[in-house]
Amino acid sequence: MPAETMEELVSLCKRRGFIFPGSDIYGGLQGTYDFGPLGVELKNNLKAAWWRSMIYERDDVEGLDSSILTHKLVLRHSGHEATFSDPLVDNRESKKRYRLDHLLKEQTPDVLEAIATALKLENTISALVAGLLAHADAGTVLTNAKVIEPGEKKPSAWTQPRLFNMMFKTTVGPVVDEDSYAYLRPETAQGIFVNFKNVVDSTSRKLPFGIAQIGKSFRNEITPRNFIFRVREFEQMELEFFCVPGTDEEWHDKWLEARIEWWQSVGLSRDRIQIFDVPKEDLSHYSKRTYDLMYKYPSIGFEEIEGIANRTDFDLGSHTKNQESYALQAKVEPNADSTEKLSISHPETQKPIIPFVIEPSAGVDRGVLAVLTEAYTKETLENGEERIVLKLRPHLAPIKVAVIPLAKNREEITSVAKSLKAKLQKLGLGRVLYEDTGNIGKAYRRHDEVGTPFCITVDFDTIGQGKDGDSSLMDTVTIRDRDTMAQQRLNMNDLEQFLREKLR
Amino acid sequence: MPAETMEELVSLCKRRGFIFPGSDIYGGLQGTYDFGPLGVELKNNLKAAWWRSMIYERDDVEGLDSSILTHKLVLRHSGHEATFSDPLVDNRESKKRYRLDHLLKEQTPDVLEAIATALKLENTISALVAGLLAHADAGTVLTNAKVIEPGEKKPSAWTQPRLFNMMFKTTVGPVVDEDSYAYLRPETAQGIFVNFKNVVDSTSRKLPFGIAQIGKSFRNEITPRNFIFRVREFEQMELEFFCVPGTDEEWHDKWLEARIEWWQSVGLSRDRIQIFDVPKEDLSHYSKRTYDLMYKYPSIGFEEIEGIANRTDFDLGSHTKNQESYALQAKVEPNADSTEKLSISHPETQKPIIPFVIEPSAGVDRGVLAVLTEAYTKETLENGEERIVLKLRPHLAPIKVAVIPLAKNREEITSVAKSLKAKLQKLGLGRVLYEDTGNIGKAYRRHDEVGTPFCITVDFDTIGQGKDGDSSLMDTVTIRDRDTMAQQRLNMNDLEQFLREKLR
Repeated sequence: MPAETMEELVSLCKRRGFIFPGSDIYGGLQGTYDFGPLGVELKNNLKAAWWRSMIYERDDVEGLDSSILTHKLVLRHSGHEATFSDPLVDNRESKKRYRLDHLLKEQTPDVLEAIATALKLENTISALVAGLLAHADAGTVLTNAKVIEPGEKKPSAWTQPRLFNMMFKTTVGPVVDEDSYAYLRPETAQGIFVNFKNVVDSTSRKLPFGIAQIGKSFRNEITPRNFIFRVREFEQMELEFFCVPGTDEEWHDKWLEARIEWWQSVGLSRDRIQIFDVPKEDLSHYSKRTYDLMYKYPSIGFEEIEGIANRTDFDLGSHTKNQESYALQAKVEPNADSTEKLSISHPETQKPIIPFVIEPSAGVDRGVLAVLTEAYTKETLENGEERIVLKLRPHLAPIKVAVIPLAKNREEITSVAKSLKAKLQKLGLGRVLYEDTGNIGKAYRRHDEVGTPFCITVDFDTIGQGKDGDSSLMDTVTIRDRDTMAQQRLNMNDLEQFLREKLR
Repeated sequence: MPAETMEELVSLCKRRGFIFPGSDIYGGLQGTYDFGPLGVELKNNLKAAWWRSMIYERDDVEGLDSSILTHKLVLRHSGHEATFSDPLVDNRESKKRYRLDHLLKEQTPDVLEAIATALKLENTISALVAGLLAHADAGTVLTNAKVIEPGEKKPSAWTQPRLFNMMFKTTVGPVVDEDSYAYLRPETAQGIFVNFKNVVDSTSRKLPFGIAQIGKSFRNEITPRNFIFRVREFEQMELEFFCVPGTDEEWHDKWLEARIEWWQSVGLSRDRIQIFDVPKEDLSHYSKRTYDLMYKYPSIGFEEIEGIANRTDFDLGSHTKNQESYALQAKVEPNADSTEKLSISHPETQKPIIPFVIEPSAGVDRGVLAVLTEAYTKETLENGEERIVLKLRPHLAPIKVAVIPLAKNREEITSVAKSLKAKLQKLGLGRVLYEDTGNIGKAYRRHDEVGTPFCITVDFDTIGQGKDGDSSLMDTVTIRDRDTMAQQRLNMNDLEQFLREKLR
């Protein structure tokens, strides 16, 4: 039974050191989070699993790590300067600011109908948003339609809605003038597109192939919310897969399947994942078709964890020079700034072409949240007590093994436990802890709650001082399974093989 | 023989896909670089080695990953708003802007003496910089002393020098006003300090212990230069090690030793590392004492690769509330903003104290550059040909193994090679490539140049079709060592163990 509310996850995350609010001691910086000692391991493990599946276990993908600070021309020609914006509107009375589409979704059908009638438009959110933005006196339209602020009862007066670009800007270099700004990238994808030729030249890749990247991106969200789901600083795992035009739809479907399988491999259950075929009118400016993978999060329900878009030849076409020499299918703006042709040989005709791109773009933070959701389990034990256990896949668990001395003050036992921990630590399996706080029952509970797959206990039997002087269990330890709570005794020499197999 | 010039490294890095200039196709964004398919692996491997040595192989360090966007109060109380700045001065004629200390270093002794005399100050760079910044008519002092622009012959006229803060700012949230800005962090350290209580509470750590973090930091350098050595966006590996006041000097020395050893473990030779005991007048505002580890880079000579600072109780003391209840040794500004006490129990007296901090702070990019420098080797072979080989430690190599079919068009051979590659890929050793471009000699050279430790060749003997029908070498392959170029024949079944041992 996965987590049912966001609150129980937030509470566990703070208590156990997974995730803290950013700039916490100064009241927080909205939309930023810090990953604590266990969160950083979980996040790194998730990223490593993605990288392994993309780069090490496939033959057709190269890796990349491009910079966050991005030249304004990159984001001008990508279309982000012009279109990467949200429509905002202010309440004249409360002075609160809303995203127009979010505000409309909270209105009654009567109000929406009144707006649609005034604008002579179809009554859908996207049509109304577009109509209001284009209307010279849209504030009056909203006010006359009696649009209500969420949580309030009386209609308010509203300002003219306007577009607000979501990219963060900063000034680069010692001179502050109108021209010396750059952007924090809003997606890692553009770093891949502008390096297309660099990667092809240095690797001699032929179509089809992909370039993958993991890294931070930044979006100035108006209303960050739902814990690490909608934040201003987040991490992406993006693949841009380049293929021959005409084979794009087939690759799109293949990647859809592959990505669902991968999410299952990190523990998500298939019945909490839905495929959303994004309607034409809601597609991003670059997309021919997009499948959103929706995961069923606690409290907020099905929301996007990954978008898999067919970006056509839009991006490479937009960033290339000599656009006119290619039969581009996407509508692109002229580009007099780019210094490179971003083409590659057609594998059969050998003619230079601009390939199509399929983009599986996953959110790392949203992935962490989904993995935590799915792993979070409340169980009632036989004795009636409740235990919380994070049933993480072993390769994602922040701590792999806890070594526990049964008696904290018996040097014969603690020294064996410490040297066992030192030995296991050297295997490179990840984090191995020596755990000597509290009694053994508490240690088990604590490690259940943070998802440690195995607890190993060194006891009197281990040092040959069993009951009634029995030394037959000398050099054996108990190893306890997190999920079943079953314990077995193993010789210390067999632990390496046991753990290697189970933690793979 | 390590690399002798920066140019040969830059050229290799671009040609082979290690490192490209950022926003390359739009003329570049100065001070940013993108890591290509091989660079990202090398960088990730270096970071993983550091993380392993800090978190997995020690018992006294926790990990963290805090956000880049940072509340302005964090960087106000850390002292960065007031002091993290460079002195700048403009040439009135050429309009070029210089860092004052860099400009002074390029002047003749006569010019410096003239400035010192005019200011009635000791003739050291740091004294002159401080004196000029404090002088109301310093531009005239510089002009009268006949300060010359680097590369020019005639003295110029200079403006009044002024301080320029090196932090990048950006506006957060939908409202643009004077108060709605945040900073891109200039060091990962502050994210650790402000999470001190979160980490202690969630892990029950006692002194001494450390918190480690790897992540991007940003500094608006006036003159980024020397490839990835001085850049505006860079990555740090920082440890903040908290200890009882009075034990700080001992820990400082221990960490100095430990860090030198670690750099040697990634391939740097001891005789290219120097310890620089930073003079009192050049210390950062928070430091009691700092050792800089200087590595001998090509073209630019000894430069800092890591700083190991004794930050005393300055940072935690600056960020804590109720400063007056602790016997702080550092001089801190009052703090009415912090909501938390950043103290911990003294391990003996149990009284709450603010610990001292030892900070080994290493540059990832500078580390990559040093590792590349050291590994880069030009050799003259017996036949008089020259080969370039990157003698990287195997755990850092971007590609671990290349599997090469001797005949590209013989299906019996390519199918064995492909299935061998698939098998090795699953071992989780890192990147394993199937290499079928060019002839075998060229493949060897290419993999020498990117540091692949082992090339495995599948040939006619492997498939039991040796010379004169000899099948005695069936199922064996040749494995070639990058450094010695020696080849040995191994049964395919023995490869796993061989590689696991060598790549550890």
